[in-house]
Amino acid sequence: MVADVRDGIATLTLDNASRRNTLSVATMQEITAALREVGGSQEVGAVVVRAEGPAFSAGHDLGEMLDRTVEDERYVFAVCTEMMQTVQEIPQPVIAAVQGPALAAGCQLVATCDLAVAAETAVFGTPGVKIGLFCSTPMVAVSRAIGRKRALQMLLTGQVIDAATAADWGLINEVVAPGRVDERAAELAAQVAAASPLTLKIGKQAFYRQIDLPQDQAYAEMSEVMATNAMTCDAQEGMSAFLEKRPAVWRGE
Amino acid sequence: MVADVRDGIATLTLDNASRRNTLSVATMQEITAALREVGGSQEVGAVVVRAEGPAFSAGHDLGEMLDRTVEDERYVFAVCTEMMQTVQEIPQPVIAAVQGPALAAGCQLVATCDLAVAAETAVFGTPGVKIGLFCSTPMVAVSRAIGRKRALQMLLTGQVIDAATAADWGLINEVVAPGRVDERAAELAAQVAAASPLTLKIGKQAFYRQIDLPQDQAYAEMSEVMATNAMTCDAQEGMSAFLEKRPAVWRGE
Amino acid sequence: MVADVRDGIATLTLDNASRRNTLSVATMQEITAALREVGGSQEVGAVVVRAEGPAFSAGHDLGEMLDRTVEDERYVFAVCTEMMQTVQEIPQPVIAAVQGPALAAGCQLVATCDLAVAAETAVFGTPGVKIGLFCSTPMVAVSRAIGRKRALQMLLTGQVIDAATAADWGLINEVVAPGRVDERAAELAAQVAAASPLTLKIGKQAFYRQIDLPQDQAYAEMSEVMATNAMTCDAQEGMSAFLEKRPAVWRGE
Repeated sequence: MVADVRDGIATLTLDNASRRNTLSVATMQEITAALREVGGSQEVGAVVVRAEGPAFSAGHDLGEMLDRTVEDERYVFAVCTEMMQTVQEIPQPVIAAVQGPALAAGCQLVATCDLAVAAETAVFGTPGVKIGLFCSTPMVAVSRAIGRKRALQMLLTGQVIDAATAADWGLINEVVAPGRVDERAAELAAQVAAASPLTLKIGKQAFYRQIDLPQDQAYAEMSEVMATNAMTCDAQEGMSAFLEKRPAVWRGE
Repeated sequence: MVADVRDGIATLTLDNASRRNTLSVATMQEITAALREVGGSQEVGAVVVRAEGPAFSAGHDLGEMLDRTVEDERYVFAVCTEMMQTVQEIPQPVIAAVQGPALAAGCQLVATCDLAVAAETAVFGTPGVKIGLFCSTPMVAVSRAIGRKRALQMLLTGQVIDAATAADWGLINEVVAPGRVDERAAELAAQVAAASPLTLKIGKQAFYRQIDLPQDQAYAEMSEVMATNAMTCDAQEGMSAFLEKRPAVWRGE
Repeated sequence: MVADVRDGIATLTLDNASRRNTLSVATMQEITAALREVGGSQEVGAVVVRAEGPAFSAGHDLGEMLDRTVEDERYVFAVCTEMMQTVQEIPQPVIAAVQGPALAAGCQLVATCDLAVAAETAVFGTPGVKIGLFCSTPMVAVSRAIGRKRALQMLLTGQVIDAATAADWGLINEVVAPGRVDERAAELAAQVAAASPLTLKIGKQAFYRQIDLPQDQAYAEMSEVMATNAMTCDAQEGMSAFLEKRPAVWRGE
């Protein structure tokens, strides 16, 4: 994995193309560490997760799950879950740029990112059922993104869906021509990074806090989030700028 | 806001077109009061929420959130949440008739109504991120209507979606030609108001009670709701009328 | 109801065509018993639920709900809920093959099956509101499959949706030509039954366990499920076979 920051956008690139960008334990730990570093940086406004080669990611490294103890297996999924949760915990929006097959934990990573753009040639699948290892952790993210019947179709048949179907089902946001994925992800990243970093932080964290709550409780918590958000300098500046029809200047506080 | 009851249908009209029907505290309190009055009326079978002018609603009145104390801000969102919850608490179905842009709390109101019809020219957005004030309370309703990836797209980019997209994503039920919104909302209102008012009351309240529960618990509660519903005069009459191929006569008990 | 097992696929056929395959208490109990028997069988890899005649199922037998005590009514819905839960509790995937109208509890049954295929001529509805008996138990399954606005549209108007709309909304997986429903359901059944029965059992049970949990808790439970799944003979065999590019041989352990 290679991490790079340019113009306020961090790009994490899976660069093990010859192994179809499998998410080995080492790779997942690198991604988590890179996300945490980015998460603590004032310089980064958005993150793009992309990959080199024909595949986005084929999922876990099966070699790390053969002939192991249950403690070894637990470790793989603990590291994986930590990576997925970190994607949603850092303050900046994370955008998946999917140029090829995203399978099993690779599909989970796409489902987990805040936003996702894919090439027409990308496909998405949770094929673990075919190799005796049901995609039970990927399904946490996938079933929450696309709903029950469609998630069960992917999980029980193991068949992939194409990018248009993934967009239609809400697994990804947008489909673009194959050569346009990185460009479009960069556009989206620049667009979201134009917002106040404090506002993005407040909003992204609030999103994941409220999404699993009963509605009444979600309203109670979000009313407080929004009231305190409204008191921030950036909100006061943003509202003033809007009313005065001038661009806002963010201070991040 | 103007409230009007005709032929058993209550119509609440946002009539501050020159201010893009902003949801000021006063306006929200008027809507809540009107909904409660309608909710207690035996004469009203359905409610339509519509607006005058080019915009459905631009959301909160920013003037009421500038240079205020945190208690002031809390009050705005408490009043707003109360309005949204009242939409879902009253026994009659509430139908949004959206002729123009529905933004921030305006979009939340559409997401909150039981049903929604929109003109082809309507757009929907949660643009708070652009003015430093993330749409954290609108996202409670919007994310529950359209799912995670799409909600985050609206929330993080602040960009609007058109009516066709809103229908495709399940934010609204139907798109009609611009001049047809009020007519179509009235048709829908008359259609739902033809049902037994007691049955609608039982069903609508049950819907919102079960939607956030784990499935097993939802079944336990809904089995009891349905068993007691079946014992009502209107259900016995409705089933008899169906079996006898005659129109049912509702007594509302 | 007729149950039949052939080539590892169990088929349950609603065969009361002249009564539109109403789900009488006796029929529901037969279905539950048949599902349990199938669930305990090592010979069955998947289940198809289909129907004879023009209708898939018109829902409950209204004759069993007229002029009854509340205990009688409770019994109907307890039996119904038990059937629905059994569909999801047995280890094998259950596929609905819908050739005609699936209404009220019939629609609920389709929403409850793991997968569903329907003919272009099938329609789906929760029309209880029209006969004074709101489809409160069907809505548990339907609202979890298709979301709030669309569920409320079906529930409040009582109008049916066609098969293409049902597929678009995620109530069913696929629409086929009228004469192709049984064939396509059989294909799907054979496809899913090719997997390790142990893996299917682990995965299906895990799916329904995690779907209603907050995401963090779902990850905690699914990480453990996946770690122990990875230790099974079938997973070790499946991963080895995949890496060695040979077909896997399942032992079901």
